[in-house]
Amino acid sequence: MGRIFKKRTSVDEALNLFLERISTIKKTEEISLETCTGRVLAEAVISERNVPHYRRAAMDGYAVRASDTMGASPSNPVMLQLSDRVEEGTSTWVHTGALVPEGADAVVMVEDTITAGNLVEIRAQVYPGKNVGQIGEDIKKGEVVFEEGHLLRPCDIAVLASLGFGRVKVFKKPVVAVIPTGDELVSRQEERDVPPPGMVLETNGLMSSLYVKKWGGIPRYLDIVPDNPDNIKRAIEANLDADMILLSGGTSVGKRDHASEVVAALGELLVHGIGVSPGKPSALGIISNIPVVCLPGYPVAGLVSLYFFVRPGIRKLATIPEIPEPIFKKRLAAKISSKIGYINFVRVVFEGDKVRPLTGNGDRVLTSVAKADGYVLVPENVEGYEEGEEVDVFLIE
Amino acid sequence: MGRIFKKRTSVDEALNLFLERISTIKKTEEISLETCTGRVLAEAVISERNVPHYRRAAMDGYAVRASDTMGASPSNPVMLQLSDRVEEGTSTWVHTGALVPEGADAVVMVEDTITAGNLVEIRAQVYPGKNVGQIGEDIKKGEVVFEEGHLLRPCDIAVLASLGFGRVKVFKKPVVAVIPTGDELVSRQEERDVPPPGMVLETNGLMSSLYVKKWGGIPRYLDIVPDNPDNIKRAIEANLDADMILLSGGTSVGKRDHASEVVAALGELLVHGIGVSPGKPSALGIISNIPVVCLPGYPVAGLVSLYFFVRPGIRKLATIPEIPEPIFKKRLAAKISSKIGYINFVRVVFEGDKVRPLTGNGDRVLTSVAKADGYVLVPENVEGYEEGEEVDVFLIE
Repeated sequence: MGRIFKKRTSVDEALNLFLERISTIKKTEEISLETCTGRVLAEAVISERNVPHYRRAAMDGYAVRASDTMGASPSNPVMLQLSDRVEEGTSTWVHTGALVPEGADAVVMVEDTITAGNLVEIRAQVYPGKNVGQIGEDIKKGEVVFEEGHLLRPCDIAVLASLGFGRVKVFKKPVVAVIPTGDELVSRQEERDVPPPGMVLETNGLMSSLYVKKWGGIPRYLDIVPDNPDNIKRAIEANLDADMILLSGGTSVGKRDHASEVVAALGELLVHGIGVSPGKPSALGIISNIPVVCLPGYPVAGLVSLYFFVRPGIRKLATIPEIPEPIFKKRLAAKISSKIGYINFVRVVFEGDKVRPLTGNGDRVLTSVAKADGYVLVPENVEGYEEGEEVDVFLIE
Repeated sequence: MGRIFKKRTSVDEALNLFLERISTIKKTEEISLETCTGRVLAEAVISERNVPHYRRAAMDGYAVRASDTMGASPSNPVMLQLSDRVEEGTSTWVHTGALVPEGADAVVMVEDTITAGNLVEIRAQVYPGKNVGQIGEDIKKGEVVFEEGHLLRPCDIAVLASLGFGRVKVFKKPVVAVIPTGDELVSRQEERDVPPPGMVLETNGLMSSLYVKKWGGIPRYLDIVPDNPDNIKRAIEANLDADMILLSGGTSVGKRDHASEVVAALGELLVHGIGVSPGKPSALGIISNIPVVCLPGYPVAGLVSLYFFVRPGIRKLATIPEIPEPIFKKRLAAKISSKIGYINFVRVVFEGDKVRPLTGNGDRVLTSVAKADGYVLVPENVEGYEEGEEVDVFLIE
């Protein structure tokens, strides 16, 4: 009870300490193209084919020998014989994407021609190669198409399909064990009615699991563990095969808050007490090379910890390239006050062109997030923002 | 062959014509909370419970009668007897989130107390209700928690879980039939080797299906249909149970381009020929109230059409709220030239703080997208941008 956080670490420092101890997962798996959206390539892809694999017409028109069109113009057209073969004085119709026949070295676009019976009037001069896609023009056999670490989007997958690939080697998704702790928790699976006074349904672990899944991990959502160091220890030890462990609850300095002590006992406690509000009681550690995040039990504080530490942690584990966070510039419809020394995570709602901060019971009320469209971060050294000031707004996903 | 696009419609006008003919899907289904991330509520959710459902301590500390603390301060503390019950002169330890016992009307935070044996020294005055979360303070029984049409995020799902919900009613996902057309296409399922000259593997339909899935639809990826109006008609008619139909290929004005004619014959062709480059041959129509998009066969043109018409179409069908597109302000590392009268979709790569436009074979080469991180849109009335100009960059997802 008399315990306090010995030290408060800034968010940036805490995140750096944490990320530098996380190694990316090297385990790979082969999966089909149909299921690889959002996955990360575990090896460079080298084309085994030329694209196109034949000389391809780039326009609807007439395949010709370019030399036959010398000097052709609307006022001085050249007449060519229509034929199945292209030789001196003959021409063959081709549509876009079709094979340009042997003998031809250019295509005159249909708009520059007039057909009359067995003849075609060529009304423009073309140079050799005009409107002809050469073999390997898009992709050459042996060329690196994507590097290792490339995040696969549907347009990329279509490229792989066009090269004849059916499967790709990608990094395995990180398995994240989610351990809810707390004597006050009741499982939703067991309790259908309103729980007894003082007891609440477990929901932070569920929320964490759904975010883990959204961010590219595989959640392993475990049973509730009582507020007891031995039980918490056993739960951690039973999950040291996971790639990351989240402990939810028990992070503060109260009588029943054991999470950080247990992490320190089993491994290394990197940080306990972080300069973010809500979210201060968050703790970060490493046990047997596995990153561990202790999420505060207050749901909004837990959410902040998920955003600030679990999301980047999963990205690093999974080699998911850092995507710049989308930012919306908006003016404040009301002022924000903030505590110096803490990054303040302020929930806001869009209100026309502006955003309005949600006030009220802050971190212990998840509805303040559920009502919010996004959040504004007030830096440690800023006391707040005035009404009308422009701020950066991030979406809550 | 002599056909041309009769009229070119601007992107905005085309999209408006299309969206105003799309009705949102009213079909609903009940699904479990564990699977509802990203789904849209088909009815308002009304709480059947109070949250909290008991008087909840907001801090670790001592539950007291506020009147007992009158005038208490560090220099003038009040001594209370520790007890299981709170009456005049007694106090009970409570931890955060615990039930505040009957008789108590406030909690003194632990930092303002000193315990000594069976006594607790109260060193601060509290008013009634201090550090006590009242029943229903967060959510009242009967209160609307989320409106119909709310997009469910993990934090929202946690709120629903805390209210005892196990399932929610959401709108069904739209089924989108994807019909690849083209005599030149070979199925990836059938062809393992390089296809014969003039033939290519079907990949636009695959790409479309993967984007449909990503954007919240259920793709129905169909077999290749030859360039023949009757075959295309039959394929459409066999899929009039879908919520949207995509025809890929056959949208131009060549001999083998039948998609728009077939749409006109079976229903209403709203637009053919759109002021976007690449993507001009796109066509939009309605058949038996089902929106139909004819995607150009050139992959980048097809992708543009997917972004500009299919994504908003799916969102409208699925009641997915319009999410503001994230925009990155970047300076150009090289100039962009653009054709007046067309929105130019320019692929760019991030290069430090700048973006560099990708030049080359444009719309027929999907690798120009696969190599790109994002795109810049040059408006119809702008001839291009100079090197160093700041532009809005959108991500390719």
